[in-house]
Amino acid sequence: MKIIVDAMGGDNAPLEIIKGSIDAKNEYQIGIILVGDENVIKKCAADNNLDISGLEIVHASEFIATDEDPSAVLKAKPDSSLAVGMRLLASGEGDGFVSAGNSGAICVGGTLLVKRIKGIKRPGFAPILPHFAGGCFMLIDAGANLETRPEILLQYAIMASSYMEKVMKIKSPRVGLANVGAEAHKGGELQHRTYELLETSGLNFVGNVEGRDLPAGACDVYVCDGFTGNLVLKTYEGVAKELLKKLKELFKKSTKNKLAAGLIMKDLKAMAKEFDYNEYGGAPIMGTAKPVFKAHGSAKAKTFKNAIRLTKEYVEADVINEMSQALK
Amino acid sequence: MKIIVDAMGGDNAPLEIIKGSIDAKNEYQIGIILVGDENVIKKCAADNNLDISGLEIVHASEFIATDEDPSAVLKAKPDSSLAVGMRLLASGEGDGFVSAGNSGAICVGGTLLVKRIKGIKRPGFAPILPHFAGGCFMLIDAGANLETRPEILLQYAIMASSYMEKVMKIKSPRVGLANVGAEAHKGGELQHRTYELLETSGLNFVGNVEGRDLPAGACDVYVCDGFTGNLVLKTYEGVAKELLKKLKELFKKSTKNKLAAGLIMKDLKAMAKEFDYNEYGGAPIMGTAKPVFKAHGSAKAKTFKNAIRLTKEYVEADVINEMSQALK
Repeated sequence: MKIIVDAMGGDNAPLEIIKGSIDAKNEYQIGIILVGDENVIKKCAADNNLDISGLEIVHASEFIATDEDPSAVLKAKPDSSLAVGMRLLASGEGDGFVSAGNSGAICVGGTLLVKRIKGIKRPGFAPILPHFAGGCFMLIDAGANLETRPEILLQYAIMASSYMEKVMKIKSPRVGLANVGAEAHKGGELQHRTYELLETSGLNFVGNVEGRDLPAGACDVYVCDGFTGNLVLKTYEGVAKELLKKLKELFKKSTKNKLAAGLIMKDLKAMAKEFDYNEYGGAPIMGTAKPVFKAHGSAKAKTFKNAIRLTKEYVEADVINEMSQALK
Repeated sequence: MKIIVDAMGGDNAPLEIIKGSIDAKNEYQIGIILVGDENVIKKCAADNNLDISGLEIVHASEFIATDEDPSAVLKAKPDSSLAVGMRLLASGEGDGFVSAGNSGAICVGGTLLVKRIKGIKRPGFAPILPHFAGGCFMLIDAGANLETRPEILLQYAIMASSYMEKVMKIKSPRVGLANVGAEAHKGGELQHRTYELLETSGLNFVGNVEGRDLPAGACDVYVCDGFTGNLVLKTYEGVAKELLKKLKELFKKSTKNKLAAGLIMKDLKAMAKEFDYNEYGGAPIMGTAKPVFKAHGSAKAKTFKNAIRLTKEYVEADVINEMSQALK
């Protein structure tokens, strides 16, 4: 098993990416190919006393910044770490690819460099999020395709169900359709048609799911157009983050509050961890012909190591093969 | 000033609606018309020792349940408390209308019974939500129209700005456009065209706002299509609610935690209150020719009293007149 790592992607590249890769290699006994500017990688490792002798390095002279136009992966920067890494994956030099870089470019590169599973119309960006019933769900699509069609949403549901079952070990994942109300007649044309397709799909379709029921764990797969999905994802993460921040401030406000914090800190940290999306590591791209995984842009070594583990599990579970079968 | 109240709408009707109406009448020195089944209202008041002698009652033989088809307000139930109340408003028997009932029916009734401001294409459902920087913002539209056009979103921005300035006293409200990224080129056709319109509108347009920046208070008016807006609204409220619930459980978990809770409870309650949407009372409908206000479905007396106050302020601020001018 060999995982290809974009050494230049994300807010903390390359240092935290290198650290996470070394840890993953040692912990999971896998091969790692670091893709990026060789001089930068080697200097960073030397400056930080990191032993990278066990990692392969493949040189790429450019990198794509987070706010750059995603199409750069194809045209403007053919020698970016993202493009080089994805071409390595496509040609079979590694089994999976992971990057903490530009989400849009990862989706575009995944679709056009790694290519799609046969029959898949559009790959989807599918982050895994924690909910408050003590588990997680996959949101698909969170922005790979802003406009969509019922047939694409059905494919998303099929692929996400495979992933959640095989990689996340959720038996018969509950599929929910993002909608403005629970009743079947809610929503517009897109929702009505998708509802019909999901109802007869053989998947464990639990009907329309409203935004309010999502945090309570109403489904394991949440199917949505990319525009709405992106806003739901970021609102979801944003509210949790701001509320936890507020709580932190409150615990520091007075001596009495600090005392309370001391008493409850352990449980509070456990709760915060349960809801920490870093624990879930990121978002697989669903529909590419080989496993492509997006780690959180802010990933530090530990989160990135987790992302490599999830990429490895994405490979091992042979979920792409299952998806291909399910789509036939 | 006379406010027309739907006595039969919401989860706690008619008791909490009657209580809230009595309190509002006494506190704000306004006239109240309770619309609903006269026998039910009188019996409920008598059973609970409530003095309703100061309130007018207008009989309506039917009511519309929360999960009923919104069009019932027009056809199936012409004598519903919602329809009767809205016709009273349209004919000038009162200055504003408030209901905790079926949101969809309130939007449909507002549009077709109360009628639109001249020039307004589609009224919007516009809840006011607390954010974590210690203030609030208006989300428009949260589901009155699932599909929309740039011109409609521009009208929403104009109306919401008027409301936030005149009723909520926010000077030069910051208008944000819901989008998947901050850059002007993000999103689809709808976002691009709306961005252009907002940029030259003379409003205080602060650009695209992502879901993650909303809870941190990035804007005072958040403009969005109704489908996405509804999902953002409910995700926003849902995450906050589940997280606070989780916190509550944690504080009860052990003796040590209970002790911590005792120390910090006052501050914690203050924080929860700051984020309690009941404090904001609900959602005005923007674009109807007279003030229509939707109170939270779960409103109890105090929240409903707040909603009556907000309806009164909606009337007093003469914001509909200002909107009409701004739209000319």
